[in-house]
Amino acid sequence: MFFKVFLKNCSLIYYQRQRDLTKLRTYGSVFVGAFALFSSKKLIIPTDDFMALPITPIPQLDAARDDMKTRMELMILRVQAEVCKALEKEEDCNKFQVDRWFRHDGGGGGITCVLQDGKVFEKAGVNISVISGNLSRGGVAQMRSRGKKLKNDEPPYFVAGISAVIHPRNPMVPTIHFNYRYFEVQDGDDLVWWFGGGTDLTPYYLSTADAIHFHATLKEACDKHDKSFYPKFKKWCDDYFNIPHRGERRGIGGIFFDDLDQPDRETCFKFATDCADAVIPSYIPLVARHKHAPYTKSERDWQLLRRGRYVEFNLVYDRGTKFGFNTPHARHESILMSLPLLARWEYMHQPESKSPEGELLEVLKNPKNWIEDCSCEES
Amino acid sequence: MFFKVFLKNCSLIYYQRQRDLTKLRTYGSVFVGAFALFSSKKLIIPTDDFMALPITPIPQLDAARDDMKTRMELMILRVQAEVCKALEKEEDCNKFQVDRWFRHDGGGGGITCVLQDGKVFEKAGVNISVISGNLSRGGVAQMRSRGKKLKNDEPPYFVAGISAVIHPRNPMVPTIHFNYRYFEVQDGDDLVWWFGGGTDLTPYYLSTADAIHFHATLKEACDKHDKSFYPKFKKWCDDYFNIPHRGERRGIGGIFFDDLDQPDRETCFKFATDCADAVIPSYIPLVARHKHAPYTKSERDWQLLRRGRYVEFNLVYDRGTKFGFNTPHARHESILMSLPLLARWEYMHQPESKSPEGELLEVLKNPKNWIEDCSCEES
Repeated sequence: MFFKVFLKNCSLIYYQRQRDLTKLRTYGSVFVGAFALFSSKKLIIPTDDFMALPITPIPQLDAARDDMKTRMELMILRVQAEVCKALEKEEDCNKFQVDRWFRHDGGGGGITCVLQDGKVFEKAGVNISVISGNLSRGGVAQMRSRGKKLKNDEPPYFVAGISAVIHPRNPMVPTIHFNYRYFEVQDGDDLVWWFGGGTDLTPYYLSTADAIHFHATLKEACDKHDKSFYPKFKKWCDDYFNIPHRGERRGIGGIFFDDLDQPDRETCFKFATDCADAVIPSYIPLVARHKHAPYTKSERDWQLLRRGRYVEFNLVYDRGTKFGFNTPHARHESILMSLPLLARWEYMHQPESKSPEGELLEVLKNPKNWIEDCSCEES
Repeated sequence: MFFKVFLKNCSLIYYQRQRDLTKLRTYGSVFVGAFALFSSKKLIIPTDDFMALPITPIPQLDAARDDMKTRMELMILRVQAEVCKALEKEEDCNKFQVDRWFRHDGGGGGITCVLQDGKVFEKAGVNISVISGNLSRGGVAQMRSRGKKLKNDEPPYFVAGISAVIHPRNPMVPTIHFNYRYFEVQDGDDLVWWFGGGTDLTPYYLSTADAIHFHATLKEACDKHDKSFYPKFKKWCDDYFNIPHRGERRGIGGIFFDDLDQPDRETCFKFATDCADAVIPSYIPLVARHKHAPYTKSERDWQLLRRGRYVEFNLVYDRGTKFGFNTPHARHESILMSLPLLARWEYMHQPESKSPEGELLEVLKNPKNWIEDCSCEES
């Protein structure tokens, strides 16, 4: 009886704290989490600040609080909540829908937060996932081809990452995408690890002031660590978000990096954290600046047409989407949350070269360096 | 002087005949075509009935009028014009925009006809292409893996095909796609050839009467040739237009076949022709029946959501689109004309199972046999 009442109380507390948590899949982990929350004096994990309870059971996180896996999970939980709250502040009343999910046939799960059909944000998705399992032979072959020296054919792996795409309604507010992840492979006695990620901007109407502010904020985060990072990762971003069949970049870039494992794990983690923390200051001022800007139907149509290009990149070229589709039991709703609410394809649409639309296209065809005093490599 | 006046007259006649022909890329072929038209009494090619002049110069077609290459080009030119005119009849005033184009760095070209933003058709594209060149080593490897016994590594090839996607505005009118093509590879002394194609329907709201009419019309075209064709090609269609990450078919199928090279070329050509000729009777009655049906915003939203799935299939899985993106100097506007004017992606959209939307989903998840007396193989 006592146990039942206790369990009921824990559940109630949990439900009150989790706003809009629609599906509760794991009563077990709720109980474990709540029990840990009330019983352990050592616990310092600020679960109240997160969008949902961590994916890894709290006692397990607490027991391995210095482990990079724990630190990464807590970092992405914190950034997810901060970004969601910063976006909600720009909305009138819409809130994020929170789905905490677990993999059916594998380890781990994720928390998908989506705000759809808002006044300011047409579709905003902020997803974290914490996944573990064994790599497939194909996955290992792909990693070896990228230079990873793996001895075993199906070694255990762990990956924790945050990934978000924010599509605003007003065509004067750009779309932002960011993604930061930590990968570990236990290759026999060797632990192989690396960080990857990036933040990039997709405007529909180009504001030079916005572009400079965005790139300068990312550059500042990079420069704190290594002056060579921003120029190198800016070029990488331009090269990655490319739509070859259109001869255009998806947007005006930002930073992108992968396989970062130097000089040491602590430094790399701090760098990824600083980049993730740069998302809000790089983007929220642009939302605030333009969210009430007037616009015409033809400007809205142009935005939807560019969103069509976004869909083309994500479905045809994006490695993350392809990897997702090829992963058995992957959660396709979380993979495809990056797609806009609406997209448009017109046959042979060609804006005038001197129009605002033509000027954006010019920059998408020939990426610019936005920071003058930066010795950026040519893209 | 005489020559100049003659050339000018030919051009004028050409322009009057080609409605909405916006880009004239090959003055040379116009001259040759017009010259042949007025000078040769032997000429029986009904160029007036086509949407534009053939891709192959008329004297060349005339000199090889029994060649399957010529017959296929003339067949797809005829079907293209018949389909475009049948669709225009259902519209109030919108007409097809006609682009005749040639490959920059290869042989051949095509005629792309698009009707966009019409009252009945939101986007309708009917494309023919007549392409020749040398296969790449990759292309040959792919064909060998499909069972083609090719001895040479980069043999000359020829392909002529028609491909169309019709997206109506009214959610009660289904989308249709069809595609018929003839392929030739000159492998040393051996000529390797085959036909491929299919016609399939993508409704947004299921009408059993429509589905039966559509499938029965295709079955009739198949049965004239071989009673085993319809059940075999119906299953192939269900298997091909599959979206594995959604666990859904794109639509309610139709027929699909490839590598058809038995019993002989004449018979195969007649079969492909009969299938192509079945497009209008299979589809136009459905347009006429539903084009004035009333619909709500929520029904329109469901249509756009299903169009998002159409985009997912075409960009992620369709072999034709993938082949196009991997072909240097391919015309991406013609490849992507199949994409709808508008598409929608909602996170976690799940219609009620008893609703009309849920009933459609049920059929997309579990393809049905629409012809009762048909011993169709189970899909």
